[in-house]
Amino acid sequence: MVRADGRSEGQLRPVKIITDFTKYAEGSVLIQMGDTHVLCNATVEAGAPPYVPMGTGWVTAEYSMLPRATGKRTPRDVSRLKIAPRSSEIQRLIGRSLRSVVDLAKLGEYTITVDCDVLQADGGTRCASITGGFVAMALACKRMVEQGLIQENPITGWAAAVSVGIVDGVCVLDLNYREDSNAEVDFNAIMTENGDLIEVQGTGEERPFTRAEHTKLLNLGTKGVKSLIGKQKKALGGIL
Amino acid sequence: MVRADGRSEGQLRPVKIITDFTKYAEGSVLIQMGDTHVLCNATVEAGAPPYVPMGTGWVTAEYSMLPRATGKRTPRDVSRLKIAPRSSEIQRLIGRSLRSVVDLAKLGEYTITVDCDVLQADGGTRCASITGGFVAMALACKRMVEQGLIQENPITGWAAAVSVGIVDGVCVLDLNYREDSNAEVDFNAIMTENGDLIEVQGTGEERPFTRAEHTKLLNLGTKGVKSLIGKQKKALGGIL
Amino acid sequence: MVRADGRSEGQLRPVKIITDFTKYAEGSVLIQMGDTHVLCNATVEAGAPPYVPMGTGWVTAEYSMLPRATGKRTPRDVSRLKIAPRSSEIQRLIGRSLRSVVDLAKLGEYTITVDCDVLQADGGTRCASITGGFVAMALACKRMVEQGLIQENPITGWAAAVSVGIVDGVCVLDLNYREDSNAEVDFNAIMTENGDLIEVQGTGEERPFTRAEHTKLLNLGTKGVKSLIGKQKKALGGIL
Amino acid sequence: MVRADGRSEGQLRPVKIITDFTKYAEGSVLIQMGDTHVLCNATVEAGAPPYVPMGTGWVTAEYSMLPRATGKRTPRDVSRLKIAPRSSEIQRLIGRSLRSVVDLAKLGEYTITVDCDVLQADGGTRCASITGGFVAMALACKRMVEQGLIQENPITGWAAAVSVGIVDGVCVLDLNYREDSNAEVDFNAIMTENGDLIEVQGTGEERPFTRAEHTKLLNLGTKGVKSLIGKQKKALGGIL
Amino acid sequence: MVRADGRSEGQLRPVKIITDFTKYAEGSVLIQMGDTHVLCNATVEAGAPPYVPMGTGWVTAEYSMLPRATGKRTPRDVSRLKIAPRSSEIQRLIGRSLRSVVDLAKLGEYTITVDCDVLQADGGTRCASITGGFVAMALACKRMVEQGLIQENPITGWAAAVSVGIVDGVCVLDLNYREDSNAEVDFNAIMTENGDLIEVQGTGEERPFTRAEHTKLLNLGTKGVKSLIGKQKKALGGIL
Amino acid sequence: MVRADGRSEGQLRPVKIITDFTKYAEGSVLIQMGDTHVLCNATVEAGAPPYVPMGTGWVTAEYSMLPRATGKRTPRDVSRLKIAPRSSEIQRLIGRSLRSVVDLAKLGEYTITVDCDVLQADGGTRCASITGGFVAMALACKRMVEQGLIQENPITGWAAAVSVGIVDGVCVLDLNYREDSNAEVDFNAIMTENGDLIEVQGTGEERPFTRAEHTKLLNLGTKGVKSLIGKQKKALGGIL
Repeated sequence: MVRADGRSEGQLRPVKIITDFTKYAEGSVLIQMGDTHVLCNATVEAGAPPYVPMGTGWVTAEYSMLPRATGKRTPRDVSRLKIAPRSSEIQRLIGRSLRSVVDLAKLGEYTITVDCDVLQADGGTRCASITGGFVAMALACKRMVEQGLIQENPITGWAAAVSVGIVDGVCVLDLNYREDSNAEVDFNAIMTENGDLIEVQGTGEERPFTRAEHTKLLNLGTKGVKSLIGKQKKALGGIL
Repeated sequence: MVRADGRSEGQLRPVKIITDFTKYAEGSVLIQMGDTHVLCNATVEAGAPPYVPMGTGWVTAEYSMLPRATGKRTPRDVSRLKIAPRSSEIQRLIGRSLRSVVDLAKLGEYTITVDCDVLQADGGTRCASITGGFVAMALACKRMVEQGLIQENPITGWAAAVSVGIVDGVCVLDLNYREDSNAEVDFNAIMTENGDLIEVQGTGEERPFTRAEHTKLLNLGTKGVKSLIGKQKKALGGIL
Repeated sequence: MVRADGRSEGQLRPVKIITDFTKYAEGSVLIQMGDTHVLCNATVEAGAPPYVPMGTGWVTAEYSMLPRATGKRTPRDVSRLKIAPRSSEIQRLIGRSLRSVVDLAKLGEYTITVDCDVLQADGGTRCASITGGFVAMALACKRMVEQGLIQENPITGWAAAVSVGIVDGVCVLDLNYREDSNAEVDFNAIMTENGDLIEVQGTGEERPFTRAEHTKLLNLGTKGVKSLIGKQKKALGGIL
Repeated sequence: MVRADGRSEGQLRPVKIITDFTKYAEGSVLIQMGDTHVLCNATVEAGAPPYVPMGTGWVTAEYSMLPRATGKRTPRDVSRLKIAPRSSEIQRLIGRSLRSVVDLAKLGEYTITVDCDVLQADGGTRCASITGGFVAMALACKRMVEQGLIQENPITGWAAAVSVGIVDGVCVLDLNYREDSNAEVDFNAIMTENGDLIEVQGTGEERPFTRAEHTKLLNLGTKGVKSLIGKQKKALGGIL
Repeated sequence: MVRADGRSEGQLRPVKIITDFTKYAEGSVLIQMGDTHVLCNATVEAGAPPYVPMGTGWVTAEYSMLPRATGKRTPRDVSRLKIAPRSSEIQRLIGRSLRSVVDLAKLGEYTITVDCDVLQADGGTRCASITGGFVAMALACKRMVEQGLIQENPITGWAAAVSVGIVDGVCVLDLNYREDSNAEVDFNAIMTENGDLIEVQGTGEERPFTRAEHTKLLNLGTKGVKSLIGKQKKALGGIL
Repeated sequence: MVRADGRSEGQLRPVKIITDFTKYAEGSVLIQMGDTHVLCNATVEAGAPPYVPMGTGWVTAEYSMLPRATGKRTPRDVSRLKIAPRSSEIQRLIGRSLRSVVDLAKLGEYTITVDCDVLQADGGTRCASITGGFVAMALACKRMVEQGLIQENPITGWAAAVSVGIVDGVCVLDLNYREDSNAEVDFNAIMTENGDLIEVQGTGEERPFTRAEHTKLLNLGTKGVKSLIGKQKKALGGIL
């Protein structure tokens, strides 16, 4: 099968990870996965939330779309006085995923906030946010070590995310918006370098799916994540 | 292994599904899974949201905890002027899960809102809400047919949910709050009667988990869901 | 006269006060007055609000209806970003009424919050909340003494509440929703065991009412409150 | 007994009702009861809320204090994103009281909104708002008849309000702020010209009160309301 | 040219500055510029915001219109859960203008809040708020010196504001609402006694305006401000 | 004088106007003025607000900063449930400025919303938003003509904005953040191609300023605006 944009079933869109896209953030990354562009800025602040043990740090994320990141303009969250439930859900996912590969005790009493602002959306924004956010976080940690705030880089492993799904009965990797809208099954795989699972979220949008389909999707996701981690390594140039 | 409350690894807590718990809702169910008690009330209202095709209906859910459903009192959402992000995420999950087993075209231009209010929480409230909410929805659909609002019951299959997880290295079914707080891996399985997947959400809370563990957890979940669907059938007394 | 539900003018609906309905609250009561069911949970927390003298405690209440406590579904407060004015008024009344029978100095620097959540409403929910909330508060105070938080029970007397009103020209006790909707005069009497007044609120819904009618209503209320205090005593089993 | 400000027990503070205080409102009144000054502006708008029968009108009120109406500055409602619960309760009372003396069918499909803004507060602001708001509403109704919007004045009788209370064991009329803060019992009486009751609200702030005290307070209130209705008549100069 | 209300092009409306209009505020002024009436109350509170250097004070302002200050009723800010953007902008302008003539170091760690509540609006409310607010602030500063809170009056000069604009091609001073609505160019001049500029805001409402027109408007504003400062001096009776 | 970044007093920072920066908006521009980077996206939607005459269109703007556009992270508006007052003021200014050069009747019943999102801030963001927003609006208007939505381009002239100010006693053009923070006088000039004024806003931040200084600042602004309009023309490539 050839997909509408010419890709094969297991092929990622072109990926570009631009570091230092803005100048103030401790880690700044623009990630592009095809026409999905997300600006990931990591901020380091002293202090940690009260629910964290003394001496331990925290990693959190915020996710938002610019009003015209999409084909139709979306009103800003503030105009409705509340964060969109979808955004709220996504930013919790990003935060959990990034925390899973950080030793919070080694981070010390610092909070890293990774702001993921979608400049342009064509499907897979939450996965791009995790993959790009990891790089922004890594840059910020490196900066912390350089500045003597912490002794040692607290990152314990690589993490990236990719969407997989079943479209017209076929399992495909890295769905764009059009594919995502028509998917029978929608799946997000957040994984480590060796294929272990950090988080999986799968939804039968139009029908339940079988265990066999589930396995096939996870295999496809594993392949995609490994490729993305390769891109992360290149962008970070060996600093991790 | 025997668990702290005496259960074996693959054993559910005692389940009780009380129908007609309140008198006004078109479908009213109190579900108890051990010390987790959730009141699920299904309301039928004419009309459907604008994003649904003409002539088609909708199923949605709201989820909330009473302030003292938990060991410590939680302030009400309204006092912070926003729904708790966790609640928002859960109610979206409940809505998706219930919609997956309803033929919205057969529902006609009606909206069923399933309110899941947690009276007492001891882990697994989202799964109890789905399992109990399904029964409340089924009662409401039956009522719609009886009242001649629709010709045919629009429910296309059974759905139930159960949590599974890895606690102290062991895969266990239907975690209570204490187990959930200490889980290395936390997993929610929403499934059909024949073990197909409606939605899966798994999180490596303290560490990534392997594909082998993932398979073991899904097997445990399948077993639990089948048992819960048995309870649903008994509660509904053959009306579906 | 015989009322629509068969009661005589001065007759209460069947009253049931179930203690320990949920397991975490320091005092938990489900009160049923006919088809009005209110869950009253009392929470004890260290500390008192800043406007209270040093060393003194506080009693406060929150009141809310579940969306489907009523014949038609009511949207949740949080979806409108504000507490319903009616709920706000009622919870202030409950708080004042309960405080009037507590020696706040003896309570010490603790706050008791009584959450009154209406599971099912058929008129008289504010009065049921006060009557049931008193029992929940008494259970919480007993627990505080047992745990050595305070030396002595700070409750200074019994308090209960009942609605009275004029329907079709006749003074009646404990109005249900249908009667309440048609009442010419609507009156809530919160009283002590010996008939003294803690709070009275009377409204001529359709016409002003005379001093003579006012006296008759208060007499009826006194009778109802005495009977309710009898039920409270039985539910508390002599612990006060 | 002579009170701190030299008044006798049953004496009102000096009352002044200035009509046409501002120029745009259909009815505009500044009422002064001693140092309590409330600006009451009545607005007439076409249309009525959806819960009112076709062809029928509505009367509603809003109540607010300027930040520096009081000894200490109070932050504005909008800065806390919610109306103060006390204000919400008061404006509901004002609305109910005014509606009780209006024939809403004769008002036609119009809404009268009476804005009561407290410029300076020294106790009794809700009662002053009702007494002054009645005059503003009467002026607006007169204007409606003059403009041919309605045939006939829809006001069915006079209404005024006064506070009474027990201070240092003595029943007194029209409490100022200092008296109100020390009152054992606090009572608001909204009455008609002939002493019938529109609304009564009485609270035992520091102790329950007896039926005998209750009677004495109502008698005092009746006297005060009659005097206030005399002032209203004078201010309106026979237009009603 | 004679204007609709009989004034010449460079003529102010009748100005009246009434001090001590309410009794609690440290400085209270009712300013009337024709039919524009604004109540300006200055409050002194200990403490200063965190962004101010230690030992230094702050001056801030809040601006609001009563609902019926205008020909049509405007809903209150709190009913929309946010301050009107126009009000927010105006109160920032008032605050900046007043701060420009105060030595914040001499003020010490105190905050002066000037509440400007428009009782009646006929154009030019922001300018009236600045002119009246200055007098209220001056009275509050005088009171601070008298009470020994500060050694020396921190006000460094006089400040007043006036609107100017181009209506039907003619430059006019102190526009009323009707003129303002039809103005081609709208300009607010906040100035010192000797004609220096504290703040200027000019908008070509219907067309851009030339540098020559700009100069003419500033000249007119200078004349108006000087006249208003004369009124301020008279109202303050030499206390500054 | 040479400024800290090496510029002369009347020199702009390097300006770059990148069109089609994102792909969905009808007009998309990234404007860079030195280290100030603003993404300006213009959206065309059918319909106009109710306060606009029938058949007439509207132009409006929204302005926001990404959290890490600045040296320290700023919390998002939605987390405080309100738009920052500064942002609200700026977006009103942008909207007025852009409307002043559009013939709203020729625009027809369409609304153009120009979203200005600051990716990186180094002073002058409101001016960059106007200058870049004009180009985005022009692109959107061109697209409307091409698609046949309107007959004729409704833009009536060129508009750009620049900040000027007095720093260390010297009048300078296009202040960066550091200069802006230390400015004695801060001035924003929005002008047409021939130097007419669309809007001027000047503030004596630390002291009032003289008429002579005012004139000098306007001259400097005129020069800067002319240069910026040159850049706009080049970016639009003769389409206007």
